[in-house]
Amino acid sequence: MKKIFILCACAWLMSIGMSAQTWQTAENAVPASEFPKVSSDRRAQFSIKAPEAKEVVLDICSKKYPMTKDADGVWTATSDPLVVGFHYYFFFVDGVQITDPACDSYYGCGRMASGIDIPEDPAEAAYYTYNKNIPHGQVRECYYWSETEQAKRRCYVYTPADYEKNPKTKYPVLYLQHGMGEGERGWHQQGKMAQIMDNAIAAGKAKPMLVVMDYGNCGYSFGAKKGESMGDFGASFTKILLEETIPFIESHFRALTDRDHRAMAGLSWGGKETFDITLANLDKFSYIGAFSGALFMAAGQEVNTMYNGAFADAAAFNKKVHALFLGTGSEENLGTQAVNEKLSAAGIKTHYYVSEGTAHEWLTWRRCLNQFIPLLF
Amino acid sequence: MKKIFILCACAWLMSIGMSAQTWQTAENAVPASEFPKVSSDRRAQFSIKAPEAKEVVLDICSKKYPMTKDADGVWTATSDPLVVGFHYYFFFVDGVQITDPACDSYYGCGRMASGIDIPEDPAEAAYYTYNKNIPHGQVRECYYWSETEQAKRRCYVYTPADYEKNPKTKYPVLYLQHGMGEGERGWHQQGKMAQIMDNAIAAGKAKPMLVVMDYGNCGYSFGAKKGESMGDFGASFTKILLEETIPFIESHFRALTDRDHRAMAGLSWGGKETFDITLANLDKFSYIGAFSGALFMAAGQEVNTMYNGAFADAAAFNKKVHALFLGTGSEENLGTQAVNEKLSAAGIKTHYYVSEGTAHEWLTWRRCLNQFIPLLF
Repeated sequence: MKKIFILCACAWLMSIGMSAQTWQTAENAVPASEFPKVSSDRRAQFSIKAPEAKEVVLDICSKKYPMTKDADGVWTATSDPLVVGFHYYFFFVDGVQITDPACDSYYGCGRMASGIDIPEDPAEAAYYTYNKNIPHGQVRECYYWSETEQAKRRCYVYTPADYEKNPKTKYPVLYLQHGMGEGERGWHQQGKMAQIMDNAIAAGKAKPMLVVMDYGNCGYSFGAKKGESMGDFGASFTKILLEETIPFIESHFRALTDRDHRAMAGLSWGGKETFDITLANLDKFSYIGAFSGALFMAAGQEVNTMYNGAFADAAAFNKKVHALFLGTGSEENLGTQAVNEKLSAAGIKTHYYVSEGTAHEWLTWRRCLNQFIPLLF
Repeated sequence: MKKIFILCACAWLMSIGMSAQTWQTAENAVPASEFPKVSSDRRAQFSIKAPEAKEVVLDICSKKYPMTKDADGVWTATSDPLVVGFHYYFFFVDGVQITDPACDSYYGCGRMASGIDIPEDPAEAAYYTYNKNIPHGQVRECYYWSETEQAKRRCYVYTPADYEKNPKTKYPVLYLQHGMGEGERGWHQQGKMAQIMDNAIAAGKAKPMLVVMDYGNCGYSFGAKKGESMGDFGASFTKILLEETIPFIESHFRALTDRDHRAMAGLSWGGKETFDITLANLDKFSYIGAFSGALFMAAGQEVNTMYNGAFADAAAFNKKVHALFLGTGSEENLGTQAVNEKLSAAGIKTHYYVSEGTAHEWLTWRRCLNQFIPLLF
């Protein structure tokens, strides 16, 4: 009897648990699609019609979930509660990795990938959430000609809401880079950069600025490869940024052009590019940010020999660089903490930030951007 | 002997044919990917790694090509020479329709789809090709709040190169709609709208104008559905365009706001929406374009009863509407020719255009846009 009571109680509690869940279509779904869906307890539910498939498996947040097929050949799966933030995901159809046709596609992981946002508590998410009560900037798609590559290149430029209202005002510029296997669309698509900038500017936490997002030449291919090898990834971007992107921006936007009004930051490989470019060009940049930066130090390497001695004179460096930001997720270790400790011990002033509970992922980088921009200009 | 000679000659001619082909990576490939590729004789070559798959089939331009697997599990296929223009394509892996991870994804066909541009002769393609020697406009991503939908909406706004240089000038506006199962990104991604506008404006063939591309609420879902049924597709967009989109544009851009400086056009279902909206609101629009428009007429319907009698007084209509453009591909028949004949017979002045050799596809609509914009403003 006791056992039956416990079973009944469990069933009742489970039904309460299930019925208490509310489901809504994820913001990443394509128009008119009901799926993917997210529940109030942060589960995600996916659906794909594939009558001919023998096995379909959902792959999200490093876990695989077998999907089940109904009589119409529609496969569905519901995940466990997921960590908040943006997650790439895939289906495996009879072993082949595919994207979800019902979900927007993002260039990441060196290929087109599906991605889903698992909502945080509204208060936590407020800084990257569209707020209807504040003015909004725009993200502009621009093409420019690269003499170096003998091809057109594409970049995106965020202009703050102010930009339209003050046709004579010039603005400082942040050059903001994506990571390896991602592209110039990453920050405004996966990163929600425009919402972060809009909210911080409206709250007076960040100054109105332009944000330029270009392709860092550090894509890699999921399939057949061409271009630079990994050791050189992004090396060709230095010349392009300095000689082509920046001149394009400064001739087509109302940009301030001195080093005091020029910043650069990047995530992961974009952090490496940021260090490589800014530390060799401190006459051009005065704010530096690395978000989960790929800042590899050889074992035993001394700070004063790194980056051609850029850090050798700490006092001079601290005077010249207005902010050096190092951010990382608490659940990853790409070496940011070690770099920060080494630089700090050598007297280099840093702004060190740890995003609690996040790994090498976009939520870490959204938070890093939000922490970085109040330091600028 | 004669037979052998002929065989040898054929083999030699074939080898000449093959060696004369040059291959280049398609403009739609993701960064660093070699595939998809296009040959000088307009074949396309695709590649996907899928060691576990038993059968992979390429599906492009209504033809299926079995792909062949190499020892590494990489499947490849080369198409026959293809019709020029933009084509959606898919792979079928063991019967399941998937996108190409090495190719950019486009929202079309009611789902995320792969797409490839088969280049035309440069002279033919010039009007939609990036030209490094002319000034370029920008495509701006904007979000605005919809009271009707109680949600943010996204639209894209093309601003001509002039817009940046003349901070007091106001510009006429073209509202430009996509088709069914496509979205607000279609015209600047699949349609190359910005290149078409840049080239036409630089050549003096079109006036500098704003082009607004919003979501026409006529998506449909490849999978589970929600929202309006097909008969109502897009009906909800009328109120949104008139009461929310237009006011947003006119309060955030330097737009001329009278009917003489406001145009609307759309492709396929967007052509239907254009007719529905403009003909009921001729106090607000004075230029009308339907590109392969879904303009269904009931059998025997009289022109003077169509659209609540908008065409009943031909002389008044011709005076009021500065341009009524009807375009279609020669290889499709959605009824544009019949509508044009009926309207013309009733004395309505139309600009009728047939895109030779193209069907219900983006090349038809690129050409239609290029024909339509010289008529405006």
